[in-house]
Amino acid sequence: MDNQKEYRYITHINSPSDLRNLKEEDLPAVCQELRADIINELSHNPGHFASSLGVVELTVALHYVFNTPYDRIVWDVGHQAYGHKILTGRREQFKTNRKFKGIKPFPSPQESEYDTFACGHASNSISAALGMAVAANKHQEDRNIIAVIGDGAMSGGLAFEGLNNVSSTPNNLLIILNDNNMSIDRSVGGMKQYLLHLNTNGTYNKIRQCLSETLSGWGILNPKRKNSILRFNNSLKSMLSQQQNIFEGLNIRYFGPIDGHNVEELVHTLNEIKNMKGPKLLHLHTVKGKGFKPAEKSATVWHAPGLFDPETGERIVKHTEGEPPRFQDVFGETLVELARENDKIVGITPAMPTGCSMNILMKEMPDRGFDVGIAEGHAVTYSGGLAKEGMVPFCNIYSSFAQRAYDNLIHDVALLKLNVVLCLDRAGLVGEDGPTHHGAFDLAYLRPIPNLTICSPYDEHELRRMMYTAQLPDMGPFVIRYPRGRGQLPDWRCPLEKIEVGSSREMKAGKDLAILTIGSIGTLAAEAIKMVEEEENVQIAHYDMRFLKPIDEQRLHDIAQRFDKIITLENGTRKGGLGSAVLEFMADNGYNPRVKVLGLPDAFVEHGSIPELLHELELDIEGIYNHIKTVLS
Amino acid sequence: MDNQKEYRYITHINSPSDLRNLKEEDLPAVCQELRADIINELSHNPGHFASSLGVVELTVALHYVFNTPYDRIVWDVGHQAYGHKILTGRREQFKTNRKFKGIKPFPSPQESEYDTFACGHASNSISAALGMAVAANKHQEDRNIIAVIGDGAMSGGLAFEGLNNVSSTPNNLLIILNDNNMSIDRSVGGMKQYLLHLNTNGTYNKIRQCLSETLSGWGILNPKRKNSILRFNNSLKSMLSQQQNIFEGLNIRYFGPIDGHNVEELVHTLNEIKNMKGPKLLHLHTVKGKGFKPAEKSATVWHAPGLFDPETGERIVKHTEGEPPRFQDVFGETLVELARENDKIVGITPAMPTGCSMNILMKEMPDRGFDVGIAEGHAVTYSGGLAKEGMVPFCNIYSSFAQRAYDNLIHDVALLKLNVVLCLDRAGLVGEDGPTHHGAFDLAYLRPIPNLTICSPYDEHELRRMMYTAQLPDMGPFVIRYPRGRGQLPDWRCPLEKIEVGSSREMKAGKDLAILTIGSIGTLAAEAIKMVEEEENVQIAHYDMRFLKPIDEQRLHDIAQRFDKIITLENGTRKGGLGSAVLEFMADNGYNPRVKVLGLPDAFVEHGSIPELLHELELDIEGIYNHIKTVLS
Repeated sequence: MDNQKEYRYITHINSPSDLRNLKEEDLPAVCQELRADIINELSHNPGHFASSLGVVELTVALHYVFNTPYDRIVWDVGHQAYGHKILTGRREQFKTNRKFKGIKPFPSPQESEYDTFACGHASNSISAALGMAVAANKHQEDRNIIAVIGDGAMSGGLAFEGLNNVSSTPNNLLIILNDNNMSIDRSVGGMKQYLLHLNTNGTYNKIRQCLSETLSGWGILNPKRKNSILRFNNSLKSMLSQQQNIFEGLNIRYFGPIDGHNVEELVHTLNEIKNMKGPKLLHLHTVKGKGFKPAEKSATVWHAPGLFDPETGERIVKHTEGEPPRFQDVFGETLVELARENDKIVGITPAMPTGCSMNILMKEMPDRGFDVGIAEGHAVTYSGGLAKEGMVPFCNIYSSFAQRAYDNLIHDVALLKLNVVLCLDRAGLVGEDGPTHHGAFDLAYLRPIPNLTICSPYDEHELRRMMYTAQLPDMGPFVIRYPRGRGQLPDWRCPLEKIEVGSSREMKAGKDLAILTIGSIGTLAAEAIKMVEEEENVQIAHYDMRFLKPIDEQRLHDIAQRFDKIITLENGTRKGGLGSAVLEFMADNGYNPRVKVLGLPDAFVEHGSIPELLHELELDIEGIYNHIKTVLS
Repeated sequence: MDNQKEYRYITHINSPSDLRNLKEEDLPAVCQELRADIINELSHNPGHFASSLGVVELTVALHYVFNTPYDRIVWDVGHQAYGHKILTGRREQFKTNRKFKGIKPFPSPQESEYDTFACGHASNSISAALGMAVAANKHQEDRNIIAVIGDGAMSGGLAFEGLNNVSSTPNNLLIILNDNNMSIDRSVGGMKQYLLHLNTNGTYNKIRQCLSETLSGWGILNPKRKNSILRFNNSLKSMLSQQQNIFEGLNIRYFGPIDGHNVEELVHTLNEIKNMKGPKLLHLHTVKGKGFKPAEKSATVWHAPGLFDPETGERIVKHTEGEPPRFQDVFGETLVELARENDKIVGITPAMPTGCSMNILMKEMPDRGFDVGIAEGHAVTYSGGLAKEGMVPFCNIYSSFAQRAYDNLIHDVALLKLNVVLCLDRAGLVGEDGPTHHGAFDLAYLRPIPNLTICSPYDEHELRRMMYTAQLPDMGPFVIRYPRGRGQLPDWRCPLEKIEVGSSREMKAGKDLAILTIGSIGTLAAEAIKMVEEEENVQIAHYDMRFLKPIDEQRLHDIAQRFDKIITLENGTRKGGLGSAVLEFMADNGYNPRVKVLGLPDAFVEHGSIPELLHELELDIEGIYNHIKTVLS
């Protein structure tokens, strides 16, 4: 299977028009090959896996039925779109998927005309596609617009706002609900229950005829009222499943559910509904990881499994004993330790229990961990409600997704000074997931918010101390941001001790230059300082600022009085973060040191491994070393 | 009616427990008095009006049935809560409502134990109340938590995220849906249609008995399946109204709709359902402005009507002829002028067509203006979709509400460099609406976002030029932020001309000090400069920077080379905005001027008139004058 010559079809599909020249009966074979190609490629070039396998048939059917790229497919979260990439002229480049300077991790209009919108953050497809559909109407283009959204993304408020607006403007939008009963971990809430029950069943079909005759006799249903009949059927379906059809309630025509792995049925259904006027939703049942047994069984593990053997399905797990832990695991383990001592602590995660390691808490104390689904805004406001009544919620959100909860943090937490502990995982550069996932902006967008405490740990011990400090009484809103990946300290379980809020640490004394860092990027500065001092007769001071807010003003006074050269360094945009805070302090207090601000550039940083990106941005040890030399010279 | 001695009840209600000592049959009279008191008070102390009139009976019934403050009422958007304030010991202080140092415009836990959460931004009540309900469970407190949410707020994604999570955790939350078929302007989308049809009707009641007997005969319904019957009734209701019950679909027990102005029926219903376990929703029909005929007829006008005669209902409209226009009207009129010339322009507003004056466009070109309801995130992502297909959307959001669309702006607009024109009305201090509504953070939270152009007009002419410039081809994402209220120029219709992106203006030459301003607060600086120059022999230069991003670097080089004293001034937080941008530039380029950064403090600014607040913050003419003197001395 890993021999490309075995493929009969997909090696000849250079664009969807090649696919459309095939006969319908060839499509199952195309699907088989596409699936094999994805499995084979992903086994040695890791990436998102199970999601793309689940939509192989849908991907083939969509490009077969619709006239892409004239028709627009809007993927909601791009990790389902590998098949789409392969079919749209990127089969060869796909081996560079997610690699530095290679093709992008998620569809991007900058890469291909078949990629119609940004799709790194969930739940945006309906709103974006609706905009495209309305624009097509304005341009009098007879264009089809199709949004493909998973059941997990459907829990996001943005998806609802989109759905709620679909019926208010003339458009022919088709929404495909890819229902695999699963978001990254598991979807939660009413919507999940709802989708679970929304299904045809035997009783339904038996009763429909019978009941409709009765009602027709009473004059409630009649042939002129086609809508009544359509809705009647759905209503009856709902009643029998003890559920209601939400979509019909929002004036969107509902079709399904149908089997998302039967490519011929998919093609027929799409052909039937593609020319119907007005907004419509097609509900598919699919299996995440379909066609690869281990992934079907354990979709969470196989969401992004790393390397594996495509034949045996064995994951090639790197031996990590003796390595420093991942920051997320330090968070997860420490949260449980704290929760054992403080019964007010609860954990809240928007659909990332495994990703942020809150699953450790959820396993040990199932009633104290809440997975609220993809719903970052709710996660924060809900935490506010909990805190208002005396609980101490640890709400963990990936930094870039926390952008979704910005107003919630300001209005529902900071304004009321509530003791919510917001832990931002994946802060700073995240690597291969690229620009939509880098946590580049958090320090800058958090700093203007009054009443916040904002800190970032240098290493695992500091993370533990910050978490301990955050849950002490009356701490108010407390943000801890830490990076993706591993830390420094194999022996990471230090005692849980309080840090003075707003205090910094002198990591190393010096007199010729002061380097002020925040977060674990400070460890790179420490290395760079060593290198410079080995070469030159200088003494460089290093301060781990720890807190962006309140910033350690006493320390800054001291530094300003003793140094005329300062470098600031952060793993975040240099517009508005630590560097700006230091500059503001100096201006406010009438100091005039020379300050060099190092951080991420004012641009969306592309994908690649974190070391590659840091090198490119001159923020790795070598880059920092060069900056120090320049400032000293 | 304006003689307090006529009141028999409410002068004796100092807290809800006084209310609870009354007999049920007294409640209609209490409602009558409460309504009269609100009308009377608001007639001479302007504020939000129609919303509070619509919930008089609900307010009385809630405090009568529930044991507040032990039980928690969470109001969604606080402008409906005047009756609540009056009944909870603030009747006397209510005359200071919204006034500087007076009681707060919206309920606030900092003011009263009866106020349970922040309620300036819509749609947060369900999430917050759910947090409180879960906390009550954890504490084993038998506390009732009631969220009161309007149909308009129900269109917000956050409300849906809350609803979607209600059923996933044990709780006894009661959600009251106050359905007045209206948000501030009108609610839109599927939810509105849905609520409009969701009603009991005659047919329903006639058929229910008959059909349920038939189905029971078939064994589908039976007494043991109570849930089936409950859902069957709702299902039937839905079918007859050709709508489905969304709430039942989300596993929330649904009751209603009932008349929200029958206080006795309300009391009975609330008593019946208050001890039921599990989450539930009670749907009320109310009339916004109820009991005051002019307001009932024209709820949008009477949302916040200003002064009026409580007897005749005549609004006391200030004569404004010859006055400068409001910025919002310059926006609204200019948008229409531009749209006549450029057929790609469309307007998008989340529920604020009147507030931002987009109603002018919507009246002249109804198919080119979109009111998407309270759904700021959708408004921006939808604009992204429109722009992706070649339209030029002008999306207008109040600055503080745009915090809701932060991720949408980053991920769905800036990343793709889409030509969305985001107009932020109500930027800077907004006055009486207070801390939840001040647009204090926008300059600081926008500046870190790559690819954005960010500008703010000095006056009406500049607003027109900026709008004209923004819609020219290939401008990319373009943000224009302008304040609440009136400008400077009665003769505001200037020619529509292009401004060079990133260019500033020298308003006045000088040599002793340079003042750099952005936005209309620059006009205060101009006055202050005059005052200083009249007194002292100095020459002060004044630059209207216009663009926060890209900032005019050529100008900054020039200023840095010619001045060693600089003041920056902005109507926004001084953490991260123009001041920080100037400091960063100076540091990056090795300049060392003395820079004084003026702007809003790092704190939530309370309510009061804009002049009062500017004075308090030393940012009025006198304050700026004093700062200039200090810097010069």
